[in-house]
Amino acid sequence: MQVITSIRAMQACALRWKRAGVRVGFVPTMGYLHEGHLSLVRLARAEADVVVVSIFVNPTQFLPGEDLEKYPRDLERDRRLCEGARVDVIFAPAADEMYVPGHSVAVEETELSQGLCGASRPGHFRGVTTVVAKLFNIVLPNVAVFGAKDYQQAAVIKRMVRDLNFPLKIVVAPILREADGLAMSSRNKYLVGALRNDALVLRHSLEKARAEVRKSSRPIPAARLKTKLKRFIERTPAARLDYVEFFDPDTLVPVRNVTPGTHLALAVFIGKTRLIDNARL
Amino acid sequence: MQVITSIRAMQACALRWKRAGVRVGFVPTMGYLHEGHLSLVRLARAEADVVVVSIFVNPTQFLPGEDLEKYPRDLERDRRLCEGARVDVIFAPAADEMYVPGHSVAVEETELSQGLCGASRPGHFRGVTTVVAKLFNIVLPNVAVFGAKDYQQAAVIKRMVRDLNFPLKIVVAPILREADGLAMSSRNKYLVGALRNDALVLRHSLEKARAEVRKSSRPIPAARLKTKLKRFIERTPAARLDYVEFFDPDTLVPVRNVTPGTHLALAVFIGKTRLIDNARL
Repeated sequence: MQVITSIRAMQACALRWKRAGVRVGFVPTMGYLHEGHLSLVRLARAEADVVVVSIFVNPTQFLPGEDLEKYPRDLERDRRLCEGARVDVIFAPAADEMYVPGHSVAVEETELSQGLCGASRPGHFRGVTTVVAKLFNIVLPNVAVFGAKDYQQAAVIKRMVRDLNFPLKIVVAPILREADGLAMSSRNKYLVGALRNDALVLRHSLEKARAEVRKSSRPIPAARLKTKLKRFIERTPAARLDYVEFFDPDTLVPVRNVTPGTHLALAVFIGKTRLIDNARL
Repeated sequence: MQVITSIRAMQACALRWKRAGVRVGFVPTMGYLHEGHLSLVRLARAEADVVVVSIFVNPTQFLPGEDLEKYPRDLERDRRLCEGARVDVIFAPAADEMYVPGHSVAVEETELSQGLCGASRPGHFRGVTTVVAKLFNIVLPNVAVFGAKDYQQAAVIKRMVRDLNFPLKIVVAPILREADGLAMSSRNKYLVGALRNDALVLRHSLEKARAEVRKSSRPIPAARLKTKLKRFIERTPAARLDYVEFFDPDTLVPVRNVTPGTHLALAVFIGKTRLIDNARL
């Protein structure tokens, strides 16, 4: 396994692969890898000859006051995990390699990125689409794999690939969960002591909504179900709801009435840690 | 020579070339080709094994009220000219092939695109960067050639290639002029009767500025030279100045004092036709 830190070297490697007809699978990450990331690597490998994992904590997708500085980093550990997962190349550029002084170009999605996390974190998806477009141009993958935990992100990236005609396929991998159902996330590291258990409120909220939809023979007004979930979440003292939204899984447009097939996403602060989760109902 | 209208077919062709190690030269145009475009084709050919010319009157770079509908089109004529210039592929997609319903992704340059034509035509360069990013992803060129008449456009595209890491090289070709010095442009077709001669005021303005700079032993205040050129242009009754600007050729930042090496760009309406020209002083 090779660790590449320069854009020039990574792109040269990618161009050699292209000429040789080697199919490239790509898993963009912010590092501090967990089993969820490794499941993306396995999917990439199934579709490609070589797998590149990028590890880059992208500053442009963090808002002022968010956890950019304290976001967990451990390249040595990531390296071992990638080695074990038979990754071919880790691309781990420094921030000033990715963003030269005076950089002034961004990629912007203006529809799917407006609600949900986009409403709570204005500018976040502009940072995501910009860095992913850059990574696609550097790694030149045939297929790129994203996790379904970041449901809106995957939708925005798919839209970017369609609308900018990137010559590649996007695969969205199912959410991987801990034994107790907490969605895997690098940010789970922040959940010390009792907070770890409090974080289950996200998963329990999804289950509660699913149960309500199953037991109801009619569509349920989204407003009513939102209020119910809000109250449910507030019963966990360390939890503060950021948003809960019921929406069409393709357009991400909020629905007035919740039925089987409606998608539910929520973001909840557990202490200072913002966690997200989602499910098809 | 092949004419391709579908994105899928063009991209498949480009991917075959990539695998075969064929170097691709690319000249994006809005059609109604003239000798200036053909000079770009020759430069592309000098750097590549095959040359693709795109012909697409891109709606997103026209503002409401501009000449999108009447912009000259003649694919048969363009085809003959490309054939004569040994172009390998014309890529001529329809507007609804390039922009699917509900498209919602744009590429935006936020610095170089602010002044000059960007100030007169807000949104124009967003349309340009978006369509060129799409075309790069469809044609996958090794080298793309742009004309220096659109000086700001070339600077914005070079910045986009740098900041989004497109794996290609940009070549900027010198302005080609008619025998009397008018910069070649598809829009010159609009100049009927006396307007054709009136349009020389752009070229004469550049020469006047150059002469002033040459004869002066000291930097000339840009404001003074602007006023002079403005008055000069106003002496042509059919001419209405849009802007005249003196700026640094790399940053496009306006200068206070004009010296040799300063760049001059101007946009002038001749009747209803907006023409641009520029020169290094």
